[in-house]
Order: sequence, then C-alpha cells, then structure tokens
Amino acid sequence: MKFIEKFNSISGNNSILCVGLDPDPSLIPPSILGEKHPILKFCREVIDATSDLVCGYKFNSAFFEVSCGQHVMKELREYVGDELITIADVKRGDIGNTARMYAKAFFENMGFDAVTLNPYMGYNTIEPFASYKDKMSFILCLTSNPSSQDFEELSLTRRNVDTDLPVQPLWELVARKVNEWNKGNNLGLVVGATKPDAFKRIREITDIPILAPGIGKQGGEPKDILGYGGIIAAVSRSIIYASNDVDFAEAARKKTEEFVKMLL
Amino acid sequence: MKFIEKFNSISGNNSILCVGLDPDPSLIPPSILGEKHPILKFCREVIDATSDLVCGYKFNSAFFEVSCGQHVMKELREYVGDELITIADVKRGDIGNTARMYAKAFFENMGFDAVTLNPYMGYNTIEPFASYKDKMSFILCLTSNPSSQDFEELSLTRRNVDTDLPVQPLWELVARKVNEWNKGNNLGLVVGATKPDAFKRIREITDIPILAPGIGKQGGEPKDILGYGGIIAAVSRSIIYASNDVDFAEAARKKTEEFVKMLL
Repeated sequence: MKFIEKFNSISGNNSILCVGLDPDPSLIPPSILGEKHPILKFCREVIDATSDLVCGYKFNSAFFEVSCGQHVMKELREYVGDELITIADVKRGDIGNTARMYAKAFFENMGFDAVTLNPYMGYNTIEPFASYKDKMSFILCLTSNPSSQDFEELSLTRRNVDTDLPVQPLWELVARKVNEWNKGNNLGLVVGATKPDAFKRIREITDIPILAPGIGKQGGEPKDILGYGGIIAAVSRSIIYASNDVDFAEAARKKTEEFVKMLL
Repeated sequence: MKFIEKFNSISGNNSILCVGLDPDPSLIPPSILGEKHPILKFCREVIDATSDLVCGYKFNSAFFEVSCGQHVMKELREYVGDELITIADVKRGDIGNTARMYAKAFFENMGFDAVTLNPYMGYNTIEPFASYKDKMSFILCLTSNPSSQDFEELSLTRRNVDTDLPVQPLWELVARKVNEWNKGNNLGLVVGATKPDAFKRIREITDIPILAPGIGKQGGEPKDILGYGGIIAAVSRSIIYASNDVDFAEAARKKTEEFVKMLL
C-alpha cells in the first residue's frame, strides 16, 4: 500500500500515535537479555502489545546498527506487515549517487514506507528519495533537541529570499523549500513536539505531513500539537521502556493507551 | 594508534590522498561479480593495489548498507590495518542518545579512526562523537554538490552573531562553531574540493583538519586545494572505477599515482 493511502486512513486505529523503536541493550528488560535474539524478541513483543492502538512504527536505525545489524530492522519491518506505517528514522543526507543507495536500501530492500532525511546539503540529497512516488520522505525542519538553536533557529538575511518575505529562521526556509519541492506530494517535515510555536507558523506555510517526535521523555506535550492536522506523533522511550521488568509489553500497551487518549 | 598521530605522520606514504571506497555493484567489473563476496574482493584488491600510495581510506556506508551489509565495511576496515587512516563516511546527525549509538557503532564496534557528521541539529549531535578523544569527527561545512546553495551558502543576519562579525554564509558560521567546539582537538571540517574559494576563507578562521572530497569525477582540481595545509583529499570514483575490466586494480593504482603526483 502507498504511504499516502496509509496516512489518509490513519483512522484505521483512530490514532496519530507512532511508536518509536529505539531498542537500547542497556535499557531493555534483563529478562529478555537471555534470549537468543533479545532485540528482535523485545521489539516483537512491543509490536504485538501495541499494533491495534497505533498508526505505525518508527525504527531508529542507530540502535540496530550498533547491536544486531540492519537485517533485524528489516525483519521487524516485515513483522509489522503492510497495514501500518513504517518509518526508517535514518536522518540521511548525502550527494546524489550515495543518496540513491540509501533510498534503495530503505525503500526497496527493507520495504519502509517512509524515511527521515537531513536537508543541510540541499535538494540533490532529497531528490533520489522523492523519485519514489509511493514513499514519503520527512525532512528535518525544527528538531526537538536544545541545540537546534545552533543553526536551525538562526535568522537568514532578506537578500537570500524573495523580497516580500520577512527575515526568517533557517528552519522556516526549510519548510518553504520542502513545500516548493513537494511536486509529488511525497515530502513531509520533522518538527519536534518540544517546539509547539513552530507548528502554527508551519501550518501557515504548508499543509504537508509532519512527523513530530519529542513527546514524553523529551518533554513535548500532546496538547501542544493537537489541532494542527496532518501530524504523526512519535513516542519512543516513554512507551518502550515503561517497565524494565517482565511486564514491559503490558506496560508499553498501557502507556500507549494513555498517549492515544491524550492525542485524540 | 590515535587519529592525530596518523594524521601528523601522513608523510609515511608522503601522500594526502585518501581513496574513497564506494563499491557500487552496477559499476564493479563483471569479472568480479561471479565471486562469492564480490564487494569484499573488489575493495580488497583496490586496497592491495594502493595502500603504499595513500594516507588512508574513506568508506561510504551507503554502498555497504544497500548491498552486503555494514559487517563487510567492518571486515574491510580491519583489512586496512592500523597504520593508515580509516574514515567512516556516514554523515550522521541525531539527538544525543542516538548519536551515542552511532559513535559506538563506528568508533568502537567497527574501529574507525574518523567519521563524517552533519551539523544541522547542532552541538548535541556532535558531542557524543567528540567525547572519543582519540578519534576524529569531520563535520559537513561546504559540500561538493550543486545544491549546497539551497542552505549552506545562504547568508545569516548580523544579529545572530557577534556584532563585530560580518554577515556570513551558514557554512562559514559552521566553520567558526566547529572551531569553537574543538576543545579536544578532534574535530575537522568537510569542504568540497569543488569550492576552492572556501578553503582560503576557512583557513583565515581555523587551522583544523579538512577532509576534501569532490576531486576527479565531481570536478574538483587538485591544484585548487594545494598549499592550504591540514587537508586530506578524497578521491573515489575516478580511482576505483578507472577500469571496468580485469585490470581494475592495476588501473586504480595508476590513477592513484597520478593523483598523488598532482597533490604533492
């Protein structure tokens, strides 16, 4: 199924909540660590416990690359099946011939519906992903971490942009540019739920889909992003590490239910 | 051996040339494709043919992720040994807990001396890498691709920076910030050899190491980056695909010799 079909029928589970799978070996329950494939087992149990409550899963590639390898990420993506949205949170950004390899790896080989990308190097690095018409690329805009102020929040001079536009922060120009590039209706933005003011501004610029991480552990509040529309809210640590004991899957479900309710 | 020791003794091979390993299955010689592990075999032969001529190797992770997997990148990094510089060209950039996983993957698990990183999300994303005192992180500054103009080359307003600094492009502020962050003498910059004017400007700001890709196929000329000091010049496609026939390793060596001579 195309990303956009899944996105439009997000109401299948009546939920904009996407669970982030960041399986950290130092945080998963000791009871699981004795398993032959602890990360596979841990993530499968979280998926089993939550899949009727969420719109999809976001896989953080770093946690697979550092431990069991990307083939486990692929196996888990297959485990989720084809009804829910699967996002490879990889934040890649590289020149054309390299970007084509990453796009093939995540969209074709692993079968993800969507990726996250970094805009720093410009459109050359986005285009190979955008050429997959049925897939979605969420481009980093204003992120949830404190040092977003180092570059993302800096103001650009007027002379860079159309003269009728005000001086604006870099992240706002990223939102405008991504909106311009979005000829195929398959680009979106990553906006941290810790920066609620930005949602209002971005919705004045564009109505493209927004992936909003940062709810829960990072401090973002569900109420801050409600009402804007076209949002997928990602929650990772608060759900998957809700318990460090044998009841971790049950606890993950309970937390998921709480977030779903807050995001209604 | 620490990165900086390898970097300071770059004259071991009397060469600032680093060969980029971007093993594209569609470009490696047909004679190799019948091998059980074609990418491993191809890269090993290129390494064997060039290791006495270069200062190191840059591994482009995308080409491994899309084909044989990152474990082959690790195997090849081990094959290079501990005399030459090994760079994981991964261009990662993510929040703290995720960046720690990537740093562990590339520095500890795979044993690379250096990585390439993306600055967009700010210092939080660099710090976990910088905490490895003996390793090096090259941060994207002004890249070799045409769409560097989309964001990297845009000018920031004066009000963002010290009042005695002129209005400056984003890439220049990245160079300044990385220089500020470089308390541990283990940060460097990635500056495309296709943008020679930038080298002069950056050397007015900082003398930290520069990784300069873009020579050869992408249009950068060795003469443009000579004379600035502290530079590692990366050449990938022009060397590793110098021949598509059984003589590919020999042809790679010949091309490497040509570039080494031009970079003296």
